[in-house]
Amino acid sequence: MRAVVVEPPSPGASVRDVPAPPDVPGGVRVSVVECGVCGTDRDIAGGKYGRAPAGAPYLILGHENLGRVAKVPAGERTLAPGDLVVATVRRGCGRCRFCAVDRSDFCETGLYTERGILGAPGYWADEYVERPEYLVPVPTGQAGTAVLLEPLSVVEKAIAQGEAVLRRKEPTPGHPATGPASALVAGTGAVGMLAVLALRTRGYAVTAVDRHGDATAAAALVQRVGAEHVDVAAGLASLDGREFDLIVEAAGSTALPFALVDRLGRNGVLVLTGIPPSGLPPAPLAEGDLLREVVLGNRAIVGSVNASRDDFEAGLRDLATFEARWPGSASGLITERRPLEEAPAIVADRAPGSIKTVLTVAASASPPAR
Amino acid sequence: MRAVVVEPPSPGASVRDVPAPPDVPGGVRVSVVECGVCGTDRDIAGGKYGRAPAGAPYLILGHENLGRVAKVPAGERTLAPGDLVVATVRRGCGRCRFCAVDRSDFCETGLYTERGILGAPGYWADEYVERPEYLVPVPTGQAGTAVLLEPLSVVEKAIAQGEAVLRRKEPTPGHPATGPASALVAGTGAVGMLAVLALRTRGYAVTAVDRHGDATAAAALVQRVGAEHVDVAAGLASLDGREFDLIVEAAGSTALPFALVDRLGRNGVLVLTGIPPSGLPPAPLAEGDLLREVVLGNRAIVGSVNASRDDFEAGLRDLATFEARWPGSASGLITERRPLEEAPAIVADRAPGSIKTVLTVAASASPPAR
Repeated sequence: MRAVVVEPPSPGASVRDVPAPPDVPGGVRVSVVECGVCGTDRDIAGGKYGRAPAGAPYLILGHENLGRVAKVPAGERTLAPGDLVVATVRRGCGRCRFCAVDRSDFCETGLYTERGILGAPGYWADEYVERPEYLVPVPTGQAGTAVLLEPLSVVEKAIAQGEAVLRRKEPTPGHPATGPASALVAGTGAVGMLAVLALRTRGYAVTAVDRHGDATAAAALVQRVGAEHVDVAAGLASLDGREFDLIVEAAGSTALPFALVDRLGRNGVLVLTGIPPSGLPPAPLAEGDLLREVVLGNRAIVGSVNASRDDFEAGLRDLATFEARWPGSASGLITERRPLEEAPAIVADRAPGSIKTVLTVAASASPPAR
Repeated sequence: MRAVVVEPPSPGASVRDVPAPPDVPGGVRVSVVECGVCGTDRDIAGGKYGRAPAGAPYLILGHENLGRVAKVPAGERTLAPGDLVVATVRRGCGRCRFCAVDRSDFCETGLYTERGILGAPGYWADEYVERPEYLVPVPTGQAGTAVLLEPLSVVEKAIAQGEAVLRRKEPTPGHPATGPASALVAGTGAVGMLAVLALRTRGYAVTAVDRHGDATAAAALVQRVGAEHVDVAAGLASLDGREFDLIVEAAGSTALPFALVDRLGRNGVLVLTGIPPSGLPPAPLAEGDLLREVVLGNRAIVGSVNASRDDFEAGLRDLATFEARWPGSASGLITERRPLEEAPAIVADRAPGSIKTVLTVAASASPPAR
C-alpha cells in the first residue's frame, strides 16, 4: 500500500510502497479516506520530533484522520463495513492508573505511543488496522468535516481543562449579572479557529489574534461567528489593555505565551496547547514581574496535550453544532484538499493563507470538495 | 496609642503615639495581644510595597494578628469582651461579584484594601476597631499558636487551590493502589513550614527544600513530622530527578519558581504563594523548554494570594490538629517573641535562623512564652 514515511530523527518525508498492516485479533481494517496536515507533522518531517515504532526502520506519518471500515472481526457489534470512523491517536502505557481507565491523555509514565508521532504507525496510508475502542463512528452527514475531529478533540480537552481550573472558585465567570465570560484565542490556525467556534458555541465573548491582517479567510470567519479579530503584529498592546477570563494559546510560539499572562484578568486561566520546539535559546523575560501577576491575581497557566475518546465524541457533537449555527464554518476551515502523493512537498513548505490542508487518500470515497 | 507606622513609598518604620481609632457603628474594639512579622512587612518598611489609607499621612503596619475583644456594640451576639480573635486582612471593593459573596480574596477589580498593607490601617498597635464579620473567634486553648493563623490561612487557600486544579482530572493523585500523593514545599519560612504541616496532615508524602543545611530548627521539625528535608543550595539536582504531584512555592524567590516546573510530575500542579518584588531585571529562561514541559505533561502553574474567612476557620482546625499530632510543632515555629517597640529594627534586619518573629503588644494578655 501507499504510505508517507519518515525516518526520525532524519528530516524528510517520502511516499513509499509498504506492506499493508497484517490482521490482528479483534482489529478492524480501515480504508483511509482523508487526513489533515498539522504543525506536528511538519516538525516530524523536519527532524525535530517523532519516533519510529520499536525495531521499525520508518514511521508512517499522520494522526488527523477519517476512514471507512473495510473489514471487521467476527463478533464485532458496533462497527460494520462502510462505516465512517475517526481513530484516536494515543495508546496507553498499560501500567499507570490513567491509562487503565482509558485516559492515556493523562498518562503518568510517559511510556505511551501515539500513532503517526511516537512509536506507532500513523494514518497517511491506504489502510490501517485498529481495535474498535479507538475508533469513533462518524455519521455520514458529517463526512465533510470529520477530518477536523482530531484537532478539535485537542481543543475540547483544552477548554475543558481551562474551565475546570476557572471553576476552582465560586462564583464562576459568566454570571448572568456580569455578562458572558471573555476569551482570547491566540493563533488562527485550525486549532485556534476551532477554539473560536467552540468558545462561541459555549457563549463566550471571543477575541482572536494573529499577525496576518484583517483580509484573511480566518479573520473573515472570526467575524462571521460573532467574534472579534485583532491583528497583533505590532504586539499585544493592540488589545488596548483588555483582559480575559480564559486565554487559549494555539500559536505554538515561544515569544507569546508569557506575554499572554499580562492579558489575563484576575483569577483568569491561560491554557497552553502549542508545543514549541525544544532547544530554543533562552528568551529574556521579566520573570519576577510575571510571577507577581500570577500570584497577586490568582492567575493560572495550564498545559493541555492530546485528548480522550470523550473529547472526540464531544467534538463530533460540536462539529454538528458549528455547521448548524454557521453553515460552512467548520468545512470552511479546510482550505485545500490535495492528493496523498503531494504530502512530502506539503509538509516541507506551508501554503500561505491556508488554514487546514487535507490529504485525499481514497478519492472515490472522499466527500465532495468545497 | 502606640503604633508602628510607615509612610509608603518612603522606606523606614517607626513607633509613634497616634490617636486610637474612633468607634464606628457596629464596630468591635480589640486590644492587640501579639502580631507576626513577615516578608511583606519587610518589603513595605523597605519602601517596595504598601499604600497608606486615602488621605492619611501614614500606614499602621502589620497584618498577622491576635487580639482580645475590649468592647462590643449594643446587640452583638457572637463576640463578648475578653474573647480572643484573629482579624482577616482584605476588605472587599464593594463592587464585584466575588466581594459581594465575601470572597474578596478573588476580588476582580483590584480596588480592595488590605489592613496593614494597602490603604487600611494594620494591627501593629495597641488597638483596632473592626466589624465582627472580619473577626474569627479563637478558643482560649489555642492562644499560643493563633498568631500563626493569618499565614496559615494563605497556606490553606494555596493548598485548596492546588488540589482543586489537581482534581481537574480523574483519577486523582493519592489513589490507594499507588500510595499517597507527593508534595514538595520550596522554602522553610513560616509559610513553607505551615505548608509542610498541613500537607502531612492531609496524608501527602512531603519533601521540603531550603538552602540552609540540615542543622536548622526548620530542618529538624520537617523530619519530626515525617517529612524529608533536602538542602538545595547546590540546585534542584539535589532532588535526584524526583517529581511531585503538588509543589507549593513559599520562598518568594524569582530564581526558583520556573525551575520548580521541572520537578513537577506529569499532570502536576505548582502553586505560587511568594510575591517577588517588582522591577527586577529580566532573567534568562529557556521559555520554549519550560512550555514544552507544561504542555506535554498537562502541568499547571497556579497563583494564590490572600485567603477567605473559610480559610481562616480551616486553619484554626488545622492548628489544633498540628499540636495534637505533633505537640509543639506549630508553637515551635514561633522562634522569638519581642516587644512591639523593637519592630522597626526587626523589619530592617532579619534574625538568622528565625522562622517566625512575633511582636508582643499587650504583655499582660499574652500567652506564656515558650
